[in-house]
Amino acid sequence: MADAEARAKLREEARPDRGTLQVLQDMASRLRIHSIRATCSTSSGHPISCSSSAEIMSVLFFYIMRYKQSDPGNPDNDRFVLAKRLSFVDVATGWLGQGLGVACGMAYTGKYFDRASYRVFCLMSDGESSEGSVWEAMAFASYYSLDNLVAIFDVNRLGHSGALHAEHCIDIYQRRCEAFGWNTYVVDGRDVEALCQVFWQASQVKHKATAVVVKTFKGRGTPSIEDAESWHGKPMPRERADAIIKLIESQIETSRNLDPQLPIEDSPEVNITDVRMTSPPDYRVGDKIATRKACGLALAKLGYANNRVVVLDGDTKYSTFSEIFNKKYPERFIECFMAEQNMVSVALGCASRGRTIAFASTFAAFLTRAFDHIRIGGLSESNINIIGSHCGVSVGDNGASQMALEDIAMFRTIPKCTIFYPTDAVSTEHAVALAANAKGMCFIRTTRPETMVIYTPQERFEIGQAKVLRHCVSDKVTVIGAGITVYEALAAADELSKQDIFIRVIDLFTIKPLDVATIISSAKATEGRIITVEDHYPQGGIGEAVRAAVSMDPDIQVHSLAVSVVPQSGKSEELLDMYRISARHIIVAVKCMLLN
Amino acid sequence: MADAEARAKLREEARPDRGTLQVLQDMASRLRIHSIRATCSTSSGHPISCSSSAEIMSVLFFYIMRYKQSDPGNPDNDRFVLAKRLSFVDVATGWLGQGLGVACGMAYTGKYFDRASYRVFCLMSDGESSEGSVWEAMAFASYYSLDNLVAIFDVNRLGHSGALHAEHCIDIYQRRCEAFGWNTYVVDGRDVEALCQVFWQASQVKHKATAVVVKTFKGRGTPSIEDAESWHGKPMPRERADAIIKLIESQIETSRNLDPQLPIEDSPEVNITDVRMTSPPDYRVGDKIATRKACGLALAKLGYANNRVVVLDGDTKYSTFSEIFNKKYPERFIECFMAEQNMVSVALGCASRGRTIAFASTFAAFLTRAFDHIRIGGLSESNINIIGSHCGVSVGDNGASQMALEDIAMFRTIPKCTIFYPTDAVSTEHAVALAANAKGMCFIRTTRPETMVIYTPQERFEIGQAKVLRHCVSDKVTVIGAGITVYEALAAADELSKQDIFIRVIDLFTIKPLDVATIISSAKATEGRIITVEDHYPQGGIGEAVRAAVSMDPDIQVHSLAVSVVPQSGKSEELLDMYRISARHIIVAVKCMLLN
Repeated sequence: MADAEARAKLREEARPDRGTLQVLQDMASRLRIHSIRATCSTSSGHPISCSSSAEIMSVLFFYIMRYKQSDPGNPDNDRFVLAKRLSFVDVATGWLGQGLGVACGMAYTGKYFDRASYRVFCLMSDGESSEGSVWEAMAFASYYSLDNLVAIFDVNRLGHSGALHAEHCIDIYQRRCEAFGWNTYVVDGRDVEALCQVFWQASQVKHKATAVVVKTFKGRGTPSIEDAESWHGKPMPRERADAIIKLIESQIETSRNLDPQLPIEDSPEVNITDVRMTSPPDYRVGDKIATRKACGLALAKLGYANNRVVVLDGDTKYSTFSEIFNKKYPERFIECFMAEQNMVSVALGCASRGRTIAFASTFAAFLTRAFDHIRIGGLSESNINIIGSHCGVSVGDNGASQMALEDIAMFRTIPKCTIFYPTDAVSTEHAVALAANAKGMCFIRTTRPETMVIYTPQERFEIGQAKVLRHCVSDKVTVIGAGITVYEALAAADELSKQDIFIRVIDLFTIKPLDVATIISSAKATEGRIITVEDHYPQGGIGEAVRAAVSMDPDIQVHSLAVSVVPQSGKSEELLDMYRISARHIIVAVKCMLLN
Repeated sequence: MADAEARAKLREEARPDRGTLQVLQDMASRLRIHSIRATCSTSSGHPISCSSSAEIMSVLFFYIMRYKQSDPGNPDNDRFVLAKRLSFVDVATGWLGQGLGVACGMAYTGKYFDRASYRVFCLMSDGESSEGSVWEAMAFASYYSLDNLVAIFDVNRLGHSGALHAEHCIDIYQRRCEAFGWNTYVVDGRDVEALCQVFWQASQVKHKATAVVVKTFKGRGTPSIEDAESWHGKPMPRERADAIIKLIESQIETSRNLDPQLPIEDSPEVNITDVRMTSPPDYRVGDKIATRKACGLALAKLGYANNRVVVLDGDTKYSTFSEIFNKKYPERFIECFMAEQNMVSVALGCASRGRTIAFASTFAAFLTRAFDHIRIGGLSESNINIIGSHCGVSVGDNGASQMALEDIAMFRTIPKCTIFYPTDAVSTEHAVALAANAKGMCFIRTTRPETMVIYTPQERFEIGQAKVLRHCVSDKVTVIGAGITVYEALAAADELSKQDIFIRVIDLFTIKPLDVATIISSAKATEGRIITVEDHYPQGGIGEAVRAAVSMDPDIQVHSLAVSVVPQSGKSEELLDMYRISARHIIVAVKCMLLN
């Protein structure tokens, strides 16, 4: 009883006074005017959707959120993630329901890694919340009790393509949010006081994320457009803009501004630059270990070197060996379950503002599930690192659907993405360390079967530097491999040398950027002959990348070996041979090339 | 009251007798034995997950479902979609929560297109239902009242990576299914009689899809493995298999079999072969029309030619112009809202068993969201057709996140996928007609801005046949374009011809398969010089495809123009020039190539 009274009193104290409410209302009106002007001037945009959330924005930015206006990137600031388009906010758009996953990553980081006071707000439209990734994020936030997270569903009921019954929508959202374990409020988006109340209440709730389902009206404040269909994505007719702006202006009563509350400064200082392993790789040439396992071990080693290294996985941790990290640093491991889209989004959130060095791993084939999220991460110039295990036919028994044969093509399209494809355990450990320090997104492709360690612990690796593993003055063909195919190339070299045919063998290490200098100089040393061999489809793979790199040199000829049909299941070595990327086929290709 | 009595009586009649129940139980035991034997023999698989659903399978296949055992592809049969791995069913696996979307497409087809009695059952594991696409499908089935659909959640609570509290899980599933608008039952998976009851009840429910949340136990029937952790994905230890099989055998009481009920034969006969437009394209050379609009018009025309043509869209129908089809044939249009993964899965379901010719459209950039679903559709050799509008920087104002610059790379990795990239309205109409008849998946890439009609209505198009638009004996370079860049190539040709430099201009029409013969013969006629120009990133695009095609010919040199950085927003023509794929840059490239 005393508790309830205390809470009521607290609520009363948190209630804004009349004057403040009017200022918030006036600020919403000004946002509306701004949105009409902005979209009129570019003749493109979504002024209507913007209008619907003007009150939400004014309440959040000038009454609820704590941040330094002069320092938007401050780590102590509350975060705001916009998952819908607002013309008065200048951010990358096109996040179809990806924002909530990013917000989850920020909230997880705030609660569990930073243990700080900052809170995370995510504004979504009803249309975008039909994306499944929203419900992956809803489940995630609920599972991890992200009580520092508030998701705002702006239910203006008009999507691109027509109306749903408004009340019906509100009811659906409320029940779905509750079923996904969220503390849920429903509120009228025109009611500034009610908005202040629910956001304040959200801050008092423990162990649950809060969903605020806001009933709004597109085009609010704009007579004859408010709540009408078919205005989505259309700017206001110019000839009417002035009259409408005048009308909205007439509703403004004050010229006062509000200053946002300052943040609580309790985020720890972090250092995520210049991360180095504390010892060289602990492998001996000849050891046998799968690169996926070496990758798990390297993550654990990196986790020791820097306490802001975090690892995410999608219910595959025993297969990707991220379990090794989890065992050592469970407090820095995030199990994202089978929800790859959300895993990538959460990683983006964890890595934002440089709070963590995030590595997310799963089967490389399953990363196709998250292509759009990876793409948007690339456009956002995120530094996340993604690990894809079980690449190619060398997987063996699992069947084509679980063999990644298109992942290189996918990641090659991501601007500035570094693609590591390490061959042995030593180079894998270096890939992990280099990825931790690299700008932009990194992808590390790992192999399922055990492979032999071929590099000494002292070998040095750099992004964009290939290794020439075999060379002599009599080399006639340059064979370029990566990962599992390097061993096939080495075996072919051994066999061919017995027949006095010598080949140069290159281990690419990174597929993007390619070591063009080494490739071209090797090609020139071998009379312009290159053979590429990859455990991937030909399309968008290593062969095409190499061809593009040497295309300005008419004297270089490239022949490519790749998996050109849908593979069956089988034993790893058998499949490499069946799909023509084994030593035997390299030997044939070399001999053919020498005949021409 | 009388109604309730009648229902109770009906329920009583539907109840299986003791003997039948024992047979169903025995069949479940035999499935378990079969699963242990199968996975032991290959030393790989998931016997444990299989065991948990053995009763579900025996009840469905021998008591509930109606089908002809001798004719599994019969259109009147009930459908069964397996979205989890079962070693005793021989189907492609790796569908992470994609099955329910496919089942939705089948159920939609049964209810609205076939108006037939067949029903659709989809078995999922709890792990896979953490994929967001499951919840997209849940929302879809609810919105479209798919009462012929039953989703079975096999909640055995042990994922790859550890346990959730079982009761907690059941409760969560029940509430989420209900919140998504499904008629929901909870049942003990060991109770054959209860399973019979709920599946029968599901068949009586109108206007709602039914979810059956089944509490099961992994490894059921196998002492010390049942419900234990860390057995997932592991075959039974060989040395124990015999003893376990003996134990299960001892529980079998009968050798009787049950015959499944025969289907109700009320599916209409359909003909989806040899579909032809009823008139030639109604455009005149010089008309201006965007290919995305021509595509919408062509779909409507195709819909007139064949009544099994159906169109799906993801809340973009006014932008993709699939609205034109919707207006004419609303009964064959499926609005899938903003849920691209589910849209592709539903299309796969609609097209299965050759019931419809399905076209699914959205912005090409948003198709990256569905890469995994497209990939699995490719592996399943589906005939669905996917349309991606708003490709490349020619989109103009929308910003990089909405410009597809990686879609060609993505679709090129899909085995046997035909990629159309039509340039004008006439070729677009032909692409749509050819896609309708083509085996395997098709992708049609359309452009946002208006482009001029360059082909006469009489022009003939074939898959894999490029068009040579300009040629003369003095040609010095072959310029290969597709879509918007063809116009840039033509403009370059006009300008260059004034300077007495002649180029051959090729419109590829299909990117996959490529017209290698025309490319090579043109290259030979132009002294081996090729320039490709594409509104796409270089990685995995047209340039790389052409290079791969001509790689065996050392005399051919390919120079590629493509969008090599993340583009800004702007006007279409300005962006083509800014990102170096305009006529001006083609002219420079031609002159450079001639200097070398």
